[in-house]
Amino acid sequence: MHRVSKIFHPADSMLQKTKNTFGSKNQSLLIDYGLMKPLDKGTYYYLPILQRSINKTSALIKRFMHKIDAQEITIPNLTATEFWKKSGRYDDYQSELFQLKDRNDKMLLLGPTFEEVITHMMKFGQNIGEKQMPIRLYQIGNKFRDENARYGLLRCREFLMKDLYTFDMDKESSTQTYEEVNEIYDKFFKFLGIPFKKVEADAQQMGGNLSHEYHYLTPIGEQKLQECSVCNETSVNSTETGDSECPKCKSNRVEKCSGIEVGHTFLLGDTYTKRQKAHYLKGNKPVPMQMGCYGIGVTRLIGAAIEKLSTDSHLRWPFPIAPFSVCIVPPEKRSKAFNAASHYLDEIHNQLNSIPTLHDSILVDDRIRVTVGDRFRDARRLGIPLVVIIGKKASEPENPQFELHFIQEEKECYLSFNDLIAEITKYTQEKLKED
Amino acid sequence: MHRVSKIFHPADSMLQKTKNTFGSKNQSLLIDYGLMKPLDKGTYYYLPILQRSINKTSALIKRFMHKIDAQEITIPNLTATEFWKKSGRYDDYQSELFQLKDRNDKMLLLGPTFEEVITHMMKFGQNIGEKQMPIRLYQIGNKFRDENARYGLLRCREFLMKDLYTFDMDKESSTQTYEEVNEIYDKFFKFLGIPFKKVEADAQQMGGNLSHEYHYLTPIGEQKLQECSVCNETSVNSTETGDSECPKCKSNRVEKCSGIEVGHTFLLGDTYTKRQKAHYLKGNKPVPMQMGCYGIGVTRLIGAAIEKLSTDSHLRWPFPIAPFSVCIVPPEKRSKAFNAASHYLDEIHNQLNSIPTLHDSILVDDRIRVTVGDRFRDARRLGIPLVVIIGKKASEPENPQFELHFIQEEKECYLSFNDLIAEITKYTQEKLKED
Repeated sequence: MHRVSKIFHPADSMLQKTKNTFGSKNQSLLIDYGLMKPLDKGTYYYLPILQRSINKTSALIKRFMHKIDAQEITIPNLTATEFWKKSGRYDDYQSELFQLKDRNDKMLLLGPTFEEVITHMMKFGQNIGEKQMPIRLYQIGNKFRDENARYGLLRCREFLMKDLYTFDMDKESSTQTYEEVNEIYDKFFKFLGIPFKKVEADAQQMGGNLSHEYHYLTPIGEQKLQECSVCNETSVNSTETGDSECPKCKSNRVEKCSGIEVGHTFLLGDTYTKRQKAHYLKGNKPVPMQMGCYGIGVTRLIGAAIEKLSTDSHLRWPFPIAPFSVCIVPPEKRSKAFNAASHYLDEIHNQLNSIPTLHDSILVDDRIRVTVGDRFRDARRLGIPLVVIIGKKASEPENPQFELHFIQEEKECYLSFNDLIAEITKYTQEKLKED
Repeated sequence: MHRVSKIFHPADSMLQKTKNTFGSKNQSLLIDYGLMKPLDKGTYYYLPILQRSINKTSALIKRFMHKIDAQEITIPNLTATEFWKKSGRYDDYQSELFQLKDRNDKMLLLGPTFEEVITHMMKFGQNIGEKQMPIRLYQIGNKFRDENARYGLLRCREFLMKDLYTFDMDKESSTQTYEEVNEIYDKFFKFLGIPFKKVEADAQQMGGNLSHEYHYLTPIGEQKLQECSVCNETSVNSTETGDSECPKCKSNRVEKCSGIEVGHTFLLGDTYTKRQKAHYLKGNKPVPMQMGCYGIGVTRLIGAAIEKLSTDSHLRWPFPIAPFSVCIVPPEKRSKAFNAASHYLDEIHNQLNSIPTLHDSILVDDRIRVTVGDRFRDARRLGIPLVVIIGKKASEPENPQFELHFIQEEKECYLSFNDLIAEITKYTQEKLKED
């Protein structure tokens, strides 16, 4: 059982009022409510409640990766600078690279992305034949970028990212893979439930042929976008003045907006594989593989989702990645309901916890010396999607009723024990339904 | 369904013969069979089959951490060198630290361990009171050490480690915590099933009062140990000559041996917390917390387990962390059994996959153009603990029988469908039984 009194969220800061001192809601709320703590510019300790959301998000991304038969691997963070010099990207990226020397004076860097390094891996002395293709490999791990960090989880110097790399036999199958990954990205972002915009992006920066960005629109987003009021297309606005036309319908009735990039896809062709000789055997002939790379910023996505959904004083999460799905508030110690209705706590907890999609995701606010009202306020601030209150009406012997609050929807109702379980089950099913 | 044909283990290297060219079995077998690939000195790409073992090991460690109410967090890898200078450890550790500067010329290092940095986190402007104590926080993440890497996963420059930090109110409760963590370590290592030695270690290096190391004994271990043939106590042998006496029974009938350290526990007292002012409020009085730190090398543990269990040409894993638990080998395409018995594949797979402890851990060797014998040999080389062969006897209409091989035990038997499922269930239960 997860108990509020036992969870490390420093100094009962949930009871503090947040002041949004940082210019972004995710940074203010996560710090003020004890979910993370800054260590240095753009580096944060992730505390247990946030860690739960990170774990859920990672598990969810893995599930979607496995739907397209991508396999998990780990690539070392420490990589030779030489790779970047050989690929020609060193000069462009240099200012953002964390660089260091090892004890043998070898130049190393902390990977911000791994195109060169995974391509190096695909060079096998033994052969990769047509049967082994296509190859789809991903990792979820720390990435490092020495840049001007800001807005909490939106731009960090150390952050968690999922990076997928695909290798195909020819351009046609590589394009099919690209479409397949984009489809699964669409489904993933749709599943999270926050409206997103997919825009065509500049593929040149990675040396590729085709690229898309996935954005959440928000005023503090760094990417300048435009929306066409005629055809509804969203695209990158790269003009200084903002006077632009829609690339699709050529209308100039476009409106400027800002986006946070939460996902990115690149069709890379053989730019890397040709240079680095990452071949497969077509019959007996070595042919460079056709490559794609695909990112999702895990911690950034969480920050961006909080940014989109939260109020200035209340955290909100997409249901699938909320740290907890349900919070149960048992009666206050000095209330009449305490003796009469406290026994429902275990019953409700165990019933809900036995539902596979809710398992291990039930929080109990066991601070029975704190009023129900104060505990309810804390649960709302934390943004737990569903809150069950075992209050006065639960102690009626004839027809005990429980208060169920839908936090996101700002609705509530009184339900019998059975209806309570049924209603929570139904809500969860709807929120976790995949198309 | 996990299919051998789809799993990326480069170049069908499972069919190659390993030559143990690296001086350690884990390095030779993991590389030769396509489970990992070296990138640089002491850094490796972990490929999908090894990644599965890493994920299982991490999940298992988490389960044991949660048994003692430890909570998961993440500490940044990039940390200010200043912390180490202030704590006085910089000079001793300097040669092993990966150091770098950021764009503002601030000195940073990649954390090999995080006592200073977590203690810094525990300094809260708001208060931590007696109610919040004890605090137990752990992470599983990459650690970095610039040292002479060797023996594959046993000594890397980038490796995965679980580090737990505990904070108590006083020495007594801190010692209780120390004992509790040591107990859970004992249970964890016992659960893995490989004999281990727990020895008292020098606590001074971390500035502590009490310390234990957990070792697997093996000739390539770097820690010099000694075993007493009178009282059976294992202890550290720090003498040059090896002439030593047992610290427990004072006998000199001790025999030298070598160990790989897979776990380490330290009772640290207030060395760090006092200096860094990590206090809790005892009433209204700030008092330094009493600290402990506890490591398990995740990737090293896997390497050491392989080292202990494997032969020169066959990988072996502890059952709980084997990449797959069962491998099913369906009939060869050109055999008579192919038409008569192939349908059992799905039935066996689905039955086994529906057992919670085996779920997602069933491998199917779908290379039906390869003989059953060759596929069985590959499964044995990979060390999948149980192998089911759907062969000639499975095509008998009256009494179909399936071949079940216990790889570790080098036993086999023929069983009916129902007995097969029952036998595998029983074996799994025994291997995953906790005391």
